[in-house]
Amino acid sequence: MTLAVRYTAPRTLDTAPAENAPPGPGEVEIAPAYVGICGTDLHIFHGDMDARVSRPAVLGHEMSGRIVRVGPDVTGWRPADAVTVMPLRWDDTCPACRAGHQHICQHLDFIGIDSPGALQQRWTVPASTLVRLPETLPLDRAALVEPTAVAVHDVGRARVRAGERVAVVGGGPVGILIALVARNAGADVRVVELSAHRRLLARELGLDVWDPASDDVPERVREWTDGAGADVAFEVSGAAAGVETAVEVLGVRGRLCLVAIHPRPREVNLHRFFWRELTLVGARLYDRSDFESAVCLVADPSLRAERLISKVVPLAEAPSAFEALESGGDVMKILVDCADNTPGATA
Amino acid sequence: MTLAVRYTAPRTLDTAPAENAPPGPGEVEIAPAYVGICGTDLHIFHGDMDARVSRPAVLGHEMSGRIVRVGPDVTGWRPADAVTVMPLRWDDTCPACRAGHQHICQHLDFIGIDSPGALQQRWTVPASTLVRLPETLPLDRAALVEPTAVAVHDVGRARVRAGERVAVVGGGPVGILIALVARNAGADVRVVELSAHRRLLARELGLDVWDPASDDVPERVREWTDGAGADVAFEVSGAAAGVETAVEVLGVRGRLCLVAIHPRPREVNLHRFFWRELTLVGARLYDRSDFESAVCLVADPSLRAERLISKVVPLAEAPSAFEALESGGDVMKILVDCADNTPGATA
Repeated sequence: MTLAVRYTAPRTLDTAPAENAPPGPGEVEIAPAYVGICGTDLHIFHGDMDARVSRPAVLGHEMSGRIVRVGPDVTGWRPADAVTVMPLRWDDTCPACRAGHQHICQHLDFIGIDSPGALQQRWTVPASTLVRLPETLPLDRAALVEPTAVAVHDVGRARVRAGERVAVVGGGPVGILIALVARNAGADVRVVELSAHRRLLARELGLDVWDPASDDVPERVREWTDGAGADVAFEVSGAAAGVETAVEVLGVRGRLCLVAIHPRPREVNLHRFFWRELTLVGARLYDRSDFESAVCLVADPSLRAERLISKVVPLAEAPSAFEALESGGDVMKILVDCADNTPGATA
Repeated sequence: MTLAVRYTAPRTLDTAPAENAPPGPGEVEIAPAYVGICGTDLHIFHGDMDARVSRPAVLGHEMSGRIVRVGPDVTGWRPADAVTVMPLRWDDTCPACRAGHQHICQHLDFIGIDSPGALQQRWTVPASTLVRLPETLPLDRAALVEPTAVAVHDVGRARVRAGERVAVVGGGPVGILIALVARNAGADVRVVELSAHRRLLARELGLDVWDPASDDVPERVREWTDGAGADVAFEVSGAAAGVETAVEVLGVRGRLCLVAIHPRPREVNLHRFFWRELTLVGARLYDRSDFESAVCLVADPSLRAERLISKVVPLAEAPSAFEALESGGDVMKILVDCADNTPGATA
């Protein structure tokens, strides 16, 4: 019998045995190795997405693992292959799909939110969602491919070019990954982050960081850019003040890429958009090419993406890891080791 | 002696004799024929821009006229040439200019706001600002070239393509011109406008129009686009509700071009920008190619741009025309006939 972590009620996760039907046509069964806990998982845990999530729900969409069984009509995949999953299923018929934007399908099934996710010891998904991992890539680091694909997509939506000056507002896992991907594209990057712990980690990764509580960020940007303003800003904080900063630091024709989720409308300085002919670009999820680029980036040792992993906990401790994340503190990314089912075995 | 209309204090214009020094090197002296009154002129008249405008100020930047005198070192221009003026002077050294965006120079001199404008019988400007008018183009209609250049710039910033569905929120002069320019580019256009007078005029120009007070605009857009949403929306209303409508009607990857001035921050549904990967593009003024395209469009009789001219008043009546515009009413564009100095001579 294998185990699954289930969201059963607001602020409540349990661990329960799961049925493992053989994979159907076009499907594969995976043994998840590591699953990252993401901000969206925490929103679900809070109960904020109960209208969308059917309980009991198995969460988890940032993962790595190995194929266990291959269903009928699946070619190109074998048991023991190392994989990650691009957790999207689209309908191919809505206006978004017909326009070629399947990743924002109007009836998107986001696997791990709208259907069962990876926080379990066996997980069956369509073979079409698989993305191959190099055998040389450690599986814990490979659990960072999904958030890195988000970062690749964001940097692409913002059309960051070599030599451009890029401000990343918010230095959580996605913000740091955006900074690393933009730097890798040749940009000159600054990160704005309130948490001292996260600023320290960003500095260890070689990033220049400002603290908006003590640095006058717009003034710093003016000095940095000789008065021109930044070419690109990423709003990854989710805060009203982050939106304000991201708009204020941009130079003429600057691009603001909106990454964070702002559930409620925000006040935006539209006059600045008019006056400087700024552009705001919304960015959501990723497509397959973003995912494949992300595999290469995470596999590149010089990126040191593994530094984002604060802690690895066994599957049985996933519920308490969610509680710990909820209370905040000095943490970046927590991974759940799905193979290890012993409470207290790691951490 | 020639006359100039001058802004001397909030809600106060007078008519006064003006000195006419001969044009200096690189300058030409023009006899303005017709000058349109624009929303920005009304803002100045209200006193809203007193921090920027030095009084007494000669307003006016939508104009047509003929050259009277040509200064030293000016080639290619002769007295009696029909011209309009692209009323921008930039410093060529600021970061915006160095990036090739002179029209939004960080030290832009907008002639008619920051320096004397066209509401006078003789006007001296740099020859570099002149744009030639075809002799076949009536000079009253030619006074619409400047707002048409705004519309050309806006449609270009939004990258409107043939076959796209375009919603224009706000059917004042610039909104109607955007609708005409977008239609001319092959787009399928709808205009959203509260004023019955303006809706009627738009219909006479062959445009489809909705009244946001009685039409459920998002529902109408869903019907029109088979649920997909519009490809492009232009926010030309300047109202909070206009911003909301423009965001709401857009489909996946839709582009919102921000044309209107919103002096205060507005609440914006950023979640929709994220969810549908929308783009917001600020658009301000125009460049020379926009101006030259605008001359061709205004000269094209099929555009029927002259229908936007509600009334022509003599120079001596310009002050009362500003007062009438301030009180609103059924009016689109008022032109001042600068050659005619007789109170009550026309109108």
